[in-house]
Amino acid sequence: MHARFYAPTAHSPGDVVALPVDEAVHLTRVLRLTRGDRVIVFNGHGQAFEAIVQSSGKGGVEIVVGAACDAAPEARVAVTLVQSILKGDKMDDVVRDAVMVGVAAIQPVVAARSEVTPASLERGRRRERWERVAVSSAKQCGRAVVPVILEPQPFAAIATLIDERQLSSPAMMLVEPQAGAAVGSLGDLDGPPPREASLLIGPEGGWTPEEIALASDRCRLVTIGGRTIRSDAMALVAMAALFARWGEY
Amino acid sequence: MHARFYAPTAHSPGDVVALPVDEAVHLTRVLRLTRGDRVIVFNGHGQAFEAIVQSSGKGGVEIVVGAACDAAPEARVAVTLVQSILKGDKMDDVVRDAVMVGVAAIQPVVAARSEVTPASLERGRRRERWERVAVSSAKQCGRAVVPVILEPQPFAAIATLIDERQLSSPAMMLVEPQAGAAVGSLGDLDGPPPREASLLIGPEGGWTPEEIALASDRCRLVTIGGRTIRSDAMALVAMAALFARWGEY
Repeated sequence: MHARFYAPTAHSPGDVVALPVDEAVHLTRVLRLTRGDRVIVFNGHGQAFEAIVQSSGKGGVEIVVGAACDAAPEARVAVTLVQSILKGDKMDDVVRDAVMVGVAAIQPVVAARSEVTPASLERGRRRERWERVAVSSAKQCGRAVVPVILEPQPFAAIATLIDERQLSSPAMMLVEPQAGAAVGSLGDLDGPPPREASLLIGPEGGWTPEEIALASDRCRLVTIGGRTIRSDAMALVAMAALFARWGEY
Repeated sequence: MHARFYAPTAHSPGDVVALPVDEAVHLTRVLRLTRGDRVIVFNGHGQAFEAIVQSSGKGGVEIVVGAACDAAPEARVAVTLVQSILKGDKMDDVVRDAVMVGVAAIQPVVAARSEVTPASLERGRRRERWERVAVSSAKQCGRAVVPVILEPQPFAAIATLIDERQLSSPAMMLVEPQAGAAVGSLGDLDGPPPREASLLIGPEGGWTPEEIALASDRCRLVTIGGRTIRSDAMALVAMAALFARWGEY
């Protein structure tokens, strides 16, 4: 099995394309590949190809794109993970795991109890970091799609996105069982799997009552069992459970 | 919400019991609780109680057990996770996550590609360490049960345990989709949920063909989608998917 690299400009057999800097470094310095070596490239939009290293050096790495090849299949339900931003590096782990399990897009949210501000996210170039994590996870899990990391938004903007039908529907908010009478379980999801869905997951301290109230008119409130799931594991648990429910596994 | 402590000898209201050393340290030095403070204790066998600190000092901590109280419900299917030992601290993470999601017992396995020997596990007191991780995870997720960590076994012994009906049945082995013609999906699991089940999960390098052959006469071989799941996340993904399949969520 050849090593996989992200080559966003690879579109057709015969293309000669330069790898992004991070990928070139991985190819030359970590894996020590060189001219003539065979690799697999994927363009992040669903296509993967056999390829051959044409040149590698200080100027970067160029590869010649060969025949199209298979990649890991995408999930049948395109899930947008609307993830409240967690502390420290935990958001990196959530991005990595969500990409691995098959998320279609990630919408970071500054929830009331996210201990972060949009300005600090901007300064820390966090979105660019999550994009790199998404590429890295796609490389490892075999996908040819790199899920898009959307611009972080405050929670109120998410309600607006739902109202304007700009967020994948149906939307489901994960809540504690005691969050109210309207809370359902995955078992209540009936009918055939949707084509797409959004999954709203709260920060370490949970959603505020105001956030739940704002969501309850717009989303299905669902809970996953009575045991407390760590916030940085919730996306993985909820997506695996939903995919199972939808016949993905 | 009061802090939760593991008190394995608490059985009835009125009992005065000493906390294990780790728990006493947590109570006094981390949370700085003292005589008269209210806590919750659980005995690891399914019972939880209100309790009051009766004394705390260098000799340890004693608590008076009060009224029984609710804990997080146990999963309806008692799953034994037969987990191949992973490298470094990854096994700790698997134990933590499996306890959180609701495992009933964990049977560590030295698979052919586990880079570890039974002797090194013994020297490193790894089983005792995993037991501490299980207690810690039970405290956090709200369970009153501490899943048992069984004595690590070589893979061949697992086949014998199955033959002698000493492992929870049905047993399922998680494999790559290309592992053979007999590989099924979760969608093939029909009928009502079983009372118990075992889930065999391989090490980083996967099961060997010999291990799969040994298991295929005794287990259902199942795969979870076409995307590669990291070995340290597989238990969480598989258990969440199975629980969803079995109506737990």
